[in-house]
Amino acid sequence: MKLPEGFSASGVACGLKPSGNPDLGMIVSDRPATAAGVFTTNRVQAAPVQLTRRHIRRSKARAIVVNAGNANACTGKQGYADARSMAEHAARGLAIKKENVLVNSTGIIGVPLDMTKVREGIEAATKALSSDGAGDFAASIMTTDTRPKIAEAVLGSAIIAGFAKGAGMIAPEMATLLAFVVTDAPVEHGFLVETLRETTADSFNAISVDGCRSTNDTLLVLANGAAGGDPIGAEHPQAGAFKDALGEVCASLARQIVEDGEGATKVVSIVVEGATNVREARRAAGTVADSVLLRCALNGADPNWGRVLAALGTSGIPFDPNVVDVWLGGQLLCQNGAPGPGDAAKARAALLDRDVEVRIGMKRGDATATVLTNDLSAEYVRINAEYTT
Amino acid sequence: MKLPEGFSASGVACGLKPSGNPDLGMIVSDRPATAAGVFTTNRVQAAPVQLTRRHIRRSKARAIVVNAGNANACTGKQGYADARSMAEHAARGLAIKKENVLVNSTGIIGVPLDMTKVREGIEAATKALSSDGAGDFAASIMTTDTRPKIAEAVLGSAIIAGFAKGAGMIAPEMATLLAFVVTDAPVEHGFLVETLRETTADSFNAISVDGCRSTNDTLLVLANGAAGGDPIGAEHPQAGAFKDALGEVCASLARQIVEDGEGATKVVSIVVEGATNVREARRAAGTVADSVLLRCALNGADPNWGRVLAALGTSGIPFDPNVVDVWLGGQLLCQNGAPGPGDAAKARAALLDRDVEVRIGMKRGDATATVLTNDLSAEYVRINAEYTT
Repeated sequence: MKLPEGFSASGVACGLKPSGNPDLGMIVSDRPATAAGVFTTNRVQAAPVQLTRRHIRRSKARAIVVNAGNANACTGKQGYADARSMAEHAARGLAIKKENVLVNSTGIIGVPLDMTKVREGIEAATKALSSDGAGDFAASIMTTDTRPKIAEAVLGSAIIAGFAKGAGMIAPEMATLLAFVVTDAPVEHGFLVETLRETTADSFNAISVDGCRSTNDTLLVLANGAAGGDPIGAEHPQAGAFKDALGEVCASLARQIVEDGEGATKVVSIVVEGATNVREARRAAGTVADSVLLRCALNGADPNWGRVLAALGTSGIPFDPNVVDVWLGGQLLCQNGAPGPGDAAKARAALLDRDVEVRIGMKRGDATATVLTNDLSAEYVRINAEYTT
Repeated sequence: MKLPEGFSASGVACGLKPSGNPDLGMIVSDRPATAAGVFTTNRVQAAPVQLTRRHIRRSKARAIVVNAGNANACTGKQGYADARSMAEHAARGLAIKKENVLVNSTGIIGVPLDMTKVREGIEAATKALSSDGAGDFAASIMTTDTRPKIAEAVLGSAIIAGFAKGAGMIAPEMATLLAFVVTDAPVEHGFLVETLRETTADSFNAISVDGCRSTNDTLLVLANGAAGGDPIGAEHPQAGAFKDALGEVCASLARQIVEDGEGATKVVSIVVEGATNVREARRAAGTVADSVLLRCALNGADPNWGRVLAALGTSGIPFDPNVVDVWLGGQLLCQNGAPGPGDAAKARAALLDRDVEVRIGMKRGDATATVLTNDLSAEYVRINAEYTT
């Protein structure tokens, strides 16, 4: 993939991952870029999240630095000092201000960073920066991901390029997820912040791998304007097109994260229709998506619609169970809260596919929402029982 | 186990379980018993729960009827008619009022009951009633349980006997859990209701197997007074002893449910100390207990304390992460939100035991709470991927 004009990237191995795989990545803009971010809502926030929230308040950034293999979370004052040291070290090598460096970490929680390795990595990554570095960067931010996640959209003469890592601890309200989007389109800061918030609700916040919100979730967008033209704001003729393109990139990355969910064999769309409002629809879909029992059933292609209703009943939404419909694999297995006319054998066959749908009709209003999730497999348990060993 | 005076019980096979195992149980009091109940908070409530809630309003009961293998949930109007028919059929055989029969079902959701089998089962169970029937009854209410759950306490000349089934869909606020406690102690209705509520908070509502609240959870207590004496109320000299004895029986049953959690290899005590109040302590412990990631780590005896903190951070409690302590297997692995002086190797060794402890110090106040849960195993996934097949 080609990076947008004015951006370079790299990914190198500095020894944080025991595997020896690349674990330090950088994306740099040759000029100040308008920056916006969305961060984890977990009360426990990793040191790099705290630092990057502070740096991004300036609304301009030049560089993104990421290490994988260690989340620098729950590491106390030393952790915060280490995050700051990462920014300082990168800033020195790039001859830019440290406040223009956005630092990110992902990996194991509660282990101090090996700063000797990190500093060497930053130096090597700085030297390796290249307009062809997108692939190296995407690979360097992976943890339990089995493949890199990249998405791209074209906006006139500009490009929007996105990168993400995911795999576990993925739940609505941002998760163990790092995502970076860079574009050479010129964008006004206020409009970028607003558009990012809207986009997140329908992409990264509409996926759930395991209901666990992490300490490090971060989504950053940098727009450096290198493609030229007037800055895009709410009144700009390209405002809608920019929103769509950013939405496309974020939705693609979010979907790739679910497709690569730890141990997952399926991508499950939980579609809620007939909710009172979108917020309620999202809440209903999210509650069903987080049901461990339903996700086990889907792993076994078991059309166990009762688990859909049982999960929905714990959402806190005051719905009437006697009017709810549930389709599994396109079959209406539950009608008005009781067994429906759908064919369970056909539903079972449909649930053997990689892409499956759980659709719920609440009959309370007109709002709909979709949340993507995975099935829960024995392999997920194996991966997460052995993570630090 | 000996039943309390005036009670008889039975358990028979009527063909609801494909295995041919016992699946219909009854407990009957020879005189009206004071009755109290606690029920699922799920918005979707099974037909027998709806009926039993209605019947128990009369505060007296004579019989408990339970079928296993089919939850009679999400079965519409027919389901409610079937539950009523179960009560009527049992009442006719016992020559008592149908309002004095408390009906319960557990098993698969969304499949109509085979009422021919159920009626035959009720007739056979009525014939089999015996003061020696405790064991048969305990066996007949099992679903994915691997062993029956029985507990007993002595209160002067009276006995408190308890039965439960559990295994999956177990979470705070009552779960796929049926529990029945019978005593020949005389107890005032108001005091029984109050004591049951308090007891539930510290026993059945303090366990979590998978964070899923079911459509059928029910806990019933019948006190028939056959042991003689003045009814026990709040001012009675035996009030405290009764509370303790009921608490002992319920806590034992709750613990047995966790010990027999689906696929579980461990019983995990999540102990929260230093919370502002008990409600907050329970919420903190419950949130940590429901972390799929932590429960996978415990399955692998992995002292991954970061997952404890990450889970706690999603509890909605406004705590300060920089003062929190976490002990795993007795080792202080996290002190003030950062790595602590504990020995990770010793923690790992301790986590290989069947009984393990996760202790959290929040340093906000003096309140404590404990929630029992299991590890999450690949076997749990296997059981729940194949439940209806």
